Amino acid sequence: MITVNARATFSPEGPFKLTTIERRELQPHDVLIEIKYAGICHSDIHTARGEWGPVNYPLVPGHEIAGIVSQVGPEVTKYVVGDRVGVGCMVDSCGECANCHKGEEQYCLHGMTGTYAAIDRYGQYTQGGYSTHIVVTEDFVVRIPDGIELDAAAPLLCAGITTYSPLRHWGAGPGKKVAVVGLGGLGHMALKLAHAMGAEVTVLSQTLKKKEEALELGADYYYASSDPETFKQLAGSFDLIINTVSAKIDINAYLSLLTLDGTLVNVGAPAEPLPVNAMSLIGHRRSFAGSMIGGIRETQEMLDFCAEHHIAPEIEIIHANQIDEAWERVLASDVRYRFVIDISTMGNE
Amino acid sequence: MITVNARATFSPEGPFKLTTIERRELQPHDVLIEIKYAGICHSDIHTARGEWGPVNYPLVPGHEIAGIVSQVGPEVTKYVVGDRVGVGCMVDSCGECANCHKGEEQYCLHGMTGTYAAIDRYGQYTQGGYSTHIVVTEDFVVRIPDGIELDAAAPLLCAGITTYSPLRHWGAGPGKKVAVVGLGGLGHMALKLAHAMGAEVTVLSQTLKKKEEALELGADYYYASSDPETFKQLAGSFDLIINTVSAKIDINAYLSLLTLDGTLVNVGAPAEPLPVNAMSLIGHRRSFAGSMIGGIRETQEMLDFCAEHHIAPEIEIIHANQIDEAWERVLASDVRYRFVIDISTMGNE
Repeated sequence: MITVNARATFSPEGPFKLTTIERRELQPHDVLIEIKYAGICHSDIHTARGEWGPVNYPLVPGHEIAGIVSQVGPEVTKYVVGDRVGVGCMVDSCGECANCHKGEEQYCLHGMTGTYAAIDRYGQYTQGGYSTHIVVTEDFVVRIPDGIELDAAAPLLCAGITTYSPLRHWGAGPGKKVAVVGLGGLGHMALKLAHAMGAEVTVLSQTLKKKEEALELGADYYYASSDPETFKQLAGSFDLIINTVSAKIDINAYLSLLTLDGTLVNVGAPAEPLPVNAMSLIGHRRSFAGSMIGGIRETQEMLDFCAEHHIAPEIEIIHANQIDEAWERVLASDVRYRFVIDISTMGNE
Repeated sequence: MITVNARATFSPEGPFKLTTIERRELQPHDVLIEIKYAGICHSDIHTARGEWGPVNYPLVPGHEIAGIVSQVGPEVTKYVVGDRVGVGCMVDSCGECANCHKGEEQYCLHGMTGTYAAIDRYGQYTQGGYSTHIVVTEDFVVRIPDGIELDAAAPLLCAGITTYSPLRHWGAGPGKKVAVVGLGGLGHMALKLAHAMGAEVTVLSQTLKKKEEALELGADYYYASSDPETFKQLAGSFDLIINTVSAKIDINAYLSLLTLDGTLVNVGAPAEPLPVNAMSLIGHRRSFAGSMIGGIRETQEMLDFCAEHHIAPEIEIIHANQIDEAWERVLASDVRYRFVIDISTMGNE
């Protein structure tokens, strides 16, 4: 076992404490990564607080991981020591089911292995990226292109791929009208990516507060969802709506904004069910869909796309001892747009 | 005006009475159809009883109309007297919006004109097919191929196209697994059509009562939806589910039966909203969609497909004075699988 430093929460309430955890000895295809940066995702909070089901403590969250390969197993072929790499929301899957064969490992029929709070194939409880090192099989490691800084790369591994994948799957591009609901970590990436793909992008945010910023980030239009006029004005407008809001929203109101054959995709999972009026769908052959991160091949494609189009998340770097505070700010929507932990501060008190 | 016999309901409670209604004088592109048969659709009941909003009385329902052209306007080019023709759920649309231009008149942005209980472009309240004659603009009339009897043709104009359109749109065919929820008027057509398209078809009906019949009609498999084991056994199985049930069902249970990228399409509209867990969609990039009848071009395509594949609905012919009784039997699910009124009995007491 390899003993490494980490920040863990020891109960649903926290706080985070410096501790040590064990990473497995390198297996033939394993890569040891020295983590440089780890993004903070809202899912970290949901999971650590037990809102998505019971978890074990101590728990080390973090599935937006960017670092440098510091050691490789004897049969590793894809990476060498010194490579700039990333790890996202999953670290393994069965590799044998129909979905894995399609390169959609996130939908593995036997369940992919989450980067934290999951049991891996060695029977070990997985621990995430709020840590100095992680051991991952090379097939679940992606290469960070030179054009992307490591700190900016981290949030792409979840917020980036979670929005890139549905945009691609539902054909965002020139001539398509895309709306992004919510302008947080995921929303601001959806906006940048859809814009870079050539779509016309409209941001729907609760208030007009972020309008200027959204337009600077590439939005063509911006509307306040708290204004009922918005829904009248935009009725039947969009080919695709990416809903990044994990809270319960009036889903029928948003569905009414879709044009014929339009799709509203939820990338977040509110705890409560969303009551859908069948008429909202039937009237214009609309679809309400969901999408979860993306496969490994597509994650690499997304990173390459971001490098090519000079796309990076807006980030605020924090020290490891600021995680609790950052979480509170995430919950208060007080972040523009993603916190990234500087892992070099891990040992500091 | 042309005065014709009809059966109308004079209040939400009924009963039907013989009466006369006025059809407009033939406009240049109008066709006068002598109705031979009219199917009874569950929507007739919902509408006439005011369950989908207030309506005017007397009301003549009926949007599954088969008959013979008995007169044509001076500029009609598509039909001549004596042609075997049908009329479905709509009798007009704006003809100018994007959706009409695509041949999807059912999704007309200005609202298509329903065959009954709608105001047409002449300001007249439309009355349906429980009547001896109807006047319709030729663009909303379809040709009934010689291979299809007029009585069997009637239900195709709603039950047929309502199921044919989503089966085509979502690619039912060889190699695809399709489930049909509910084995009534729509369900039995969905089954026959999906089978003829080459898909593997599973019927999900409340009990095992209709199993033998379903297999005779072409189903490959049949399961009782009242048995919880069904949902365990079929989890993640289907590419496409056509839900013909207009009542509130456990939508998440049915969504769990979809495979990666599968779609559940509602063709009925339950009065109550369906509470959807976003996780049901996100976990396998599933979609919950709706579909409403089909365009005129597609309705003709469906009729030609039915003629080519010798597909006809299972019908029970009734006399015009049996409508009330037939409605009660529809509500009690006591019909195999569609009532069709013999309009030659219209004047009988």
